Parts: sequence; C-alpha cells; structure tokens
Amino acid sequence: MFQLSFSPKEGEGVLYEQLYRSIRDQIQSGHLQPGERLPGKRSLASSLSVSVNTVDTAYQMLCAEGYLESRPRSGFFVQRYDGPIPPPTCQAPLQPDSPAPRWRYDLSTGGVDLNQFPFRTWGRIQKELLYSQPQLLNRGHGQGDWELRVAIAQYLQANRGVDCLPKQIVVGAGIEYLLGLLAPMLPGVAGLEDPGYQRSWKIFSNHSTPCVPLKVDWQGLCPDSLKESPANIVYVTPSHQFPTGGVLPAGRRAALLQWASDAPGRCLIEDDYDSEFRFHLRPLPSLQGMAGRSGPVVYLTTFSRSLAPGIRIACMVLPTWLLDGFQQRYGHYACTVGRFEQQTLRLFLERGHFTRHLARSRSRYKQKVQTLTSQLKQALPCPLSFHGQHTGLHLVMQLSHGPQESQLVEKARAAGVALTGLSTYAVHSTVPERSLVLGYGALEESQIPALCQTLSQCWFGE
Amino acid sequence: MFQLSFSPKEGEGVLYEQLYRSIRDQIQSGHLQPGERLPGKRSLASSLSVSVNTVDTAYQMLCAEGYLESRPRSGFFVQRYDGPIPPPTCQAPLQPDSPAPRWRYDLSTGGVDLNQFPFRTWGRIQKELLYSQPQLLNRGHGQGDWELRVAIAQYLQANRGVDCLPKQIVVGAGIEYLLGLLAPMLPGVAGLEDPGYQRSWKIFSNHSTPCVPLKVDWQGLCPDSLKESPANIVYVTPSHQFPTGGVLPAGRRAALLQWASDAPGRCLIEDDYDSEFRFHLRPLPSLQGMAGRSGPVVYLTTFSRSLAPGIRIACMVLPTWLLDGFQQRYGHYACTVGRFEQQTLRLFLERGHFTRHLARSRSRYKQKVQTLTSQLKQALPCPLSFHGQHTGLHLVMQLSHGPQESQLVEKARAAGVALTGLSTYAVHSTVPERSLVLGYGALEESQIPALCQTLSQCWFGE
Repeated sequence: MFQLSFSPKEGEGVLYEQLYRSIRDQIQSGHLQPGERLPGKRSLASSLSVSVNTVDTAYQMLCAEGYLESRPRSGFFVQRYDGPIPPPTCQAPLQPDSPAPRWRYDLSTGGVDLNQFPFRTWGRIQKELLYSQPQLLNRGHGQGDWELRVAIAQYLQANRGVDCLPKQIVVGAGIEYLLGLLAPMLPGVAGLEDPGYQRSWKIFSNHSTPCVPLKVDWQGLCPDSLKESPANIVYVTPSHQFPTGGVLPAGRRAALLQWASDAPGRCLIEDDYDSEFRFHLRPLPSLQGMAGRSGPVVYLTTFSRSLAPGIRIACMVLPTWLLDGFQQRYGHYACTVGRFEQQTLRLFLERGHFTRHLARSRSRYKQKVQTLTSQLKQALPCPLSFHGQHTGLHLVMQLSHGPQESQLVEKARAAGVALTGLSTYAVHSTVPERSLVLGYGALEESQIPALCQTLSQCWFGE
Repeated sequence: MFQLSFSPKEGEGVLYEQLYRSIRDQIQSGHLQPGERLPGKRSLASSLSVSVNTVDTAYQMLCAEGYLESRPRSGFFVQRYDGPIPPPTCQAPLQPDSPAPRWRYDLSTGGVDLNQFPFRTWGRIQKELLYSQPQLLNRGHGQGDWELRVAIAQYLQANRGVDCLPKQIVVGAGIEYLLGLLAPMLPGVAGLEDPGYQRSWKIFSNHSTPCVPLKVDWQGLCPDSLKESPANIVYVTPSHQFPTGGVLPAGRRAALLQWASDAPGRCLIEDDYDSEFRFHLRPLPSLQGMAGRSGPVVYLTTFSRSLAPGIRIACMVLPTWLLDGFQQRYGHYACTVGRFEQQTLRLFLERGHFTRHLARSRSRYKQKVQTLTSQLKQALPCPLSFHGQHTGLHLVMQLSHGPQESQLVEKARAAGVALTGLSTYAVHSTVPERSLVLGYGALEESQIPALCQTLSQCWFGE
C-alpha cells in the first residue's frame, strides 16, 4: 500500500510547493518507483488534511516536469526518472572572487541619486506593457523599436539641438557597446582627450585602432593640438569634459567642426554622457546639431546617467553617410536592449515623465553641489578651486597646498572616502597638482558635513 | 488683470495635466510674460471650478520644469523662458523605412510561442524587485550579477552537464554580442558549419577573422572536414545543428575534442542555442562538460529562445585559461543586461519557475511538431522526409519531388507563408534538393490544417 510521507512546515513556502517538492524528492531518491500509481487527489487530500486544490496543483506541476504521467480515467503514475546529468567532480565554493569594498563616502564618478528614481511611474508603465503588449516578446528592429527612436529623436532635437531622423538612431545597451560597433567603421587613428575616458581608449585599442592623446585644459579639448596630430577620428566630451569638467566654448566647437570638414575621412565622436545636468548655463547645442544630419559628427548619449546606471539604455546618432555601412556590417544583429525596457523608456519620454524627472533631479543635484563646495571651503584649511561644478555629476577640486595627489587619495581612502586623483585619467599628459575628481551623484546631502570633517582630519589633521 | 484661458476637454488627460499644458503653452508663446504673477491657487481653482489640488499639482509641475518660480509668501511667478533650442530646418515624416511584411503563416526560425510566456510570474518578480531592491539601480559587475551567475551555473550543470564556476560565466545581451567579445580573443582562422548561422560568419568577418566552411551532414558537423582545414577555431551547434537539425553523435563529439587537444591554439565554440527543447532523446551532455573547466571549449547559450526573443539575456562560459585575457580586454566594460532583468531571471531560475516553464513549453512544442509533420504528410501529395524534428524549434522538410527549392520558397511566400530554403544558409556547400527550413515556434496549432492546405495548393495545385 502506497505511503506518501509529507509533513508541511511553516516558513517553507505554500503547501502545494511543499507537497510538490516532497513527492519530487521521493521520485528522485527512488522511494517512489516508475509505474507506481499515486493516490487519487481526493483521497490524498483527505489523508493529508489539505485541500483537493493543493494536491491538484502539486500533481499538475509534477506532470508538467515529467515526474508524473496523467492517464485519463486511471490516475497519476510515476514516470521513469533518469536522474540529472551527473554533476561534475567537485563543487567549488560559490563565493565572489573579490567582494566590492564598502566605503563610508563614495565619491567615485558614475553614481546617481537613487532616491530620485521614479519607481512608481517606471513600475506602472512596465506592468502596463507586460500585460497589454505581448508582441513585445518578439524580436524587434536591430537599431531599436521605431517608436522609441521617434521619441528619442524628438527629445534630442528639443533639448540638445540634435538634428536627426529616427533611422539615424541606434539604441544599444551602453555607450561602450555602441562605441564598439562604431570603432571598426571609422578607419584611421583615434585622437582622445587626455585626461579622458579610459574606457574609450580601451575600446578603440580592442578594435586595433591606434590611439593618440589630445590636449585638454579647463575649458575642454584644445583644437590646436589637432594641428600636429595624426588623428582623423576625434573622441570628445564637449558638454562636460570627462573628467576635468570643462564646457567646450563655442569658438572651439567651431574650430573642431572646421577641422573635421577640412579633409576627407575625418570624424568627430561627440559623447554627450551627462549633458542633462546643467545648473547655471543655458546649454550650448550639440556639435551634431551644428554639423547637421550629414555632417562629420557621430553623437552618443546614455540614459544610464539620467535614469540609473543599472538601466542599460544608450543611443548613437549616425550621420547619414554611415547608415549604409552600418546596415551592411550589423544589419543582422539584434538590438541589445530588451523590448519591454525600450517601450518603458518610450512611454516615459512620450508622457513627459522624463522631462519632469530631469527637472526634479537637476534642482536636487544643484543644491547638493552647492552644499558640497561651500562646506568643503569652510572645512579645509587651504584655498580651493573647483572646476566643472556647474554641470554634470562630478567636479574637480584643486587644493592650493597640502599633501600631493597620491597622498590625498591614499589618506582619503584609508579614512573610508572613495575618490580619485585627476592623474588617474591621464595617459601622457601632466595634470595640475593636487586635483581630485569628486563624483557626488550618489552622495546624500546629509552626509556632507561629516564627509568634510573627515577629509579635513585625514589631510590636515584638524 | 491676469486672464488665464483654460477650457478642459474630455479625453485629453487628467485635469491637472491639461491645466499644466495650458499654462506652459502660454508661457512658451509669450502670452504670459516673465515676472508675471499667477493667480493664487485658491482663487484660480474657484474661477476655473476645479479643485485646489488640481491647481497645486499643475503649479508644482511647472515649478519643477523651471516655467514658474515659487516665492515664499508671495506666490508663483513666470520665469524667463529661453525657448527651446531652435528646431533644425525641416521635420521629415516620421515613418519607418520599411514596414515589416505581414505573413499569414510565419515559419521563420527564431519565433517562439508567446502564449507560453509566464507573464504573471515574470511581472510579479519584476515588481517585487523594483520596490524592494533599489540598489539594483547601481552599476553591477561587468560579467553579470554574481547571484545570477551562480543560478546559471547550477542550472547549466544540472541540465546541460556544463562544468563551470560562476566566475567563468559572462552574461550579455545576446549571443551576437558575446561572440563579438570572444572573436578577437581567439586569433587564427574560424571554421564554421556550412550550412550554418549566417550571423556567426558576419561576426567573425566583422572582427577580421578569416572564415572557412566546414562540412555538415544530417548528423551535424563532420569532424573529418577538419583534417584538411586551416581552421583552429571551430564554431559548432552540437545539440541541434543550425539549420539542418542534426544532433551530433557521441563519436563525433569525441573526435572534435580530440582534434582540439591535438594542437595548441585550437578551440571549440559550442553554441547551445536551443538545447532546452528536446522531445524524445535524453540530451547528450555539452561538449564543454566533456572537456572540463579548463578544456578547449567556450560554451554559449541564450534565454531568448527559451523565454522570448524580446528578452535579451544570453551567457557564455569561458574556459579558465581565457579568464585573464577577458579581464584585461573587457574588465572595464559594463554588463549589457539591465540589473532588474538579471535579477528577475535569477529569481525565476532559483524558484524553479524556469524548469516548470520549460516543461510546459516542451510538451506544447512536442505536440505542435507532431501535428505539423503528420498533417504535412497527409496534405502534400509527395513523400516527405523530416530532419531535426526531435529537438529545437525548427525542422527541415525535404520533398522527394516537385518544384525546385527556389520555386517552393517563392510560391509559399506568394501565398503568405514565410519559410526559407536550406540553401539560404549555405556558403560554399551544395545542400540537398527541395529542402525547406520550417520554424514552428510561433505557429499556432490551430493554424496547421489551413497552412498545410495552402502549401499543397500553391506547390501542387491541389
């Protein structure tokens, strides 16, 4: 006579799951044999004092997974269980290699204020789409859904003066990915800002594109440095030079565009990574907008900064002369952003949530940077100068005297403050002394007084 | 005296949004001038016969966007409106270049049964994470979240005999993306199945890796063809050769592994794209599992097939000897899959939903392919043979006589049936005559009788 052992326990999940696991384990262990007939649902329910529904659900799950077979008018029978594929030799411990260090104050760049994220709106749109648009499970266009590209084109046009049609837009999971697609399409030598984005050097190098450094000062890239450079491709961050924070003046923008049009095969790559956060200045329109749809500029931007780094959506605007080449190389590639995420962002843009989210975030970041700079000035016993504090989510702080950069960084880290020296981003250039890059996106305003105290203490002992 | 024109209309959104838009438009048009003071909330509410909350919400939105300024104890004042950046010359029509053709029956490969998708469970997990795990907005590990890699390692070990540690796993937005990372790390000549995946040819070529074709028969890749080949990298689909459907026999697997270990610099890339759907056979373990963690095999698989193409999550298992090189090249790259999607998949795996989802889908697909093949045999007035119908979501149908392949494809398409000829996937090889690739993932079972009638009619006029 069949005896099913089953003793439900509190805190181990709903009853039907416990029952399902119990039967499954007994099949796997051989306690229940292939061909054996299980008790009827009603009789098992009554013997276990559970509802018939509970037994039914557990039986259906077991059938679905092939542990049981349901034979019409006969009942449920144990199927032959082949056992899992034998697990490989030994199971090594499943711990991450290097746990992320925990900082008291994280001033690394790339952090954002998570309290600003519109959880409710994002969640509502996500849910709305999941239940009403099942066709989004299908593969979409390789460059991204058309409707999203329309919404992005309109947003970029109105806010960044970007002049493009949706067909020029490529949506992808991060600027790195998009730059990786772009790099091999632009033969020649890449000129990169120095100091600048390390990842861009890496990406061009990974695609075997030779890289040369270009000079940067507090206003951004120096176009003069192109005169003697072999570069024909220039990667530039005009809205907020990374990391020095300079905003490229109109004259230099014009000079760059002039340089690009002076010879064939030249191209500017404009990385507009955090142009959304400007606190004082009216933004200058993008280089792309100045050059036009068929001009020598590829425009890149990301929503990972304005929304959250964990949401991977970026886009690239190709000039019209690159479209055919792109299609030829990548026409068969699938878009790297899931379609539900694409359409969530689309509705977020279309319904004006993004504009409102940016406005709210902007005023909060503005207040944060003002508090940070004024309190640093009060707390540190040495004159300070700041660069790039009027836009973006990081700034450069320069100390007039005191320990050298490496000492400043080391002491701060020892005191639990994650920050980087400007020289970290330099390849060949000599950067100004005692200059530190402070990202304040993720910093809580309430932490600022204690942070300033900590820095003063560890650097100047006061 | 201030006069605010506002006449709410039904169907144009909630009242506060209408009021917000109305005031915003009047500021943009210059109808409301900078410095002008808006009526108090209560007085405006009563003059418009709306609630004070409605006015308050609209005012707050306008303040957030910088249209109004709220001065304590004075009221709301119009801010200077700089106007948007002037829109570029002309706005071209925003229509997609080429609307996707609509087919009556879509037998292209890559489609899946959307009715199988676990909308409720997926949505519930998504919501749970969005509200309880705000830290997922932060940037995660470049290879994917640790917990997801643990869950994937366990799943692959139990179901595919893959022998790996989580640190060997790289999560990415699609096999194409991952193969694009991998290709430049494996110098030499790539041997690809012919007929085979066009996209793999494209990816290797895009990375300037020379490609040579390798022979394929109904059992899959022929290891003999490697004897005279310059290839040192072999891209292979052993579980279900794409597109011929062959399952690589154990002997050939052993021969491939032998070949790979016979000389340094050799490597197998195992694309296990739809191994989840096996209907009759007990699966053979992966090549990777046979070779071990430090063996000459890179394993690739995707969740886009088992869940949905619109969800972009794939993964790659690197052998240990490739890990340092990967870190060096890509250590700074961000993961291309958003963290909420990663963790949704993780919980979906951990809680057993994936196993149940696969079991349900498998039985449904099995029934579908049985109905399809038996009804095709009945409907078409010529002997048929099928290949690869015991696994995966497509099969090859070979007609013993009748029109040639190009005619079969053309006539089917004219009748609204999207299918492809086997020769489409061939590079240098000659494929068997009258062989068609039928993907039935997205096909509804109820459509099958009419589909078979249509094919019989358009090919044989009966």
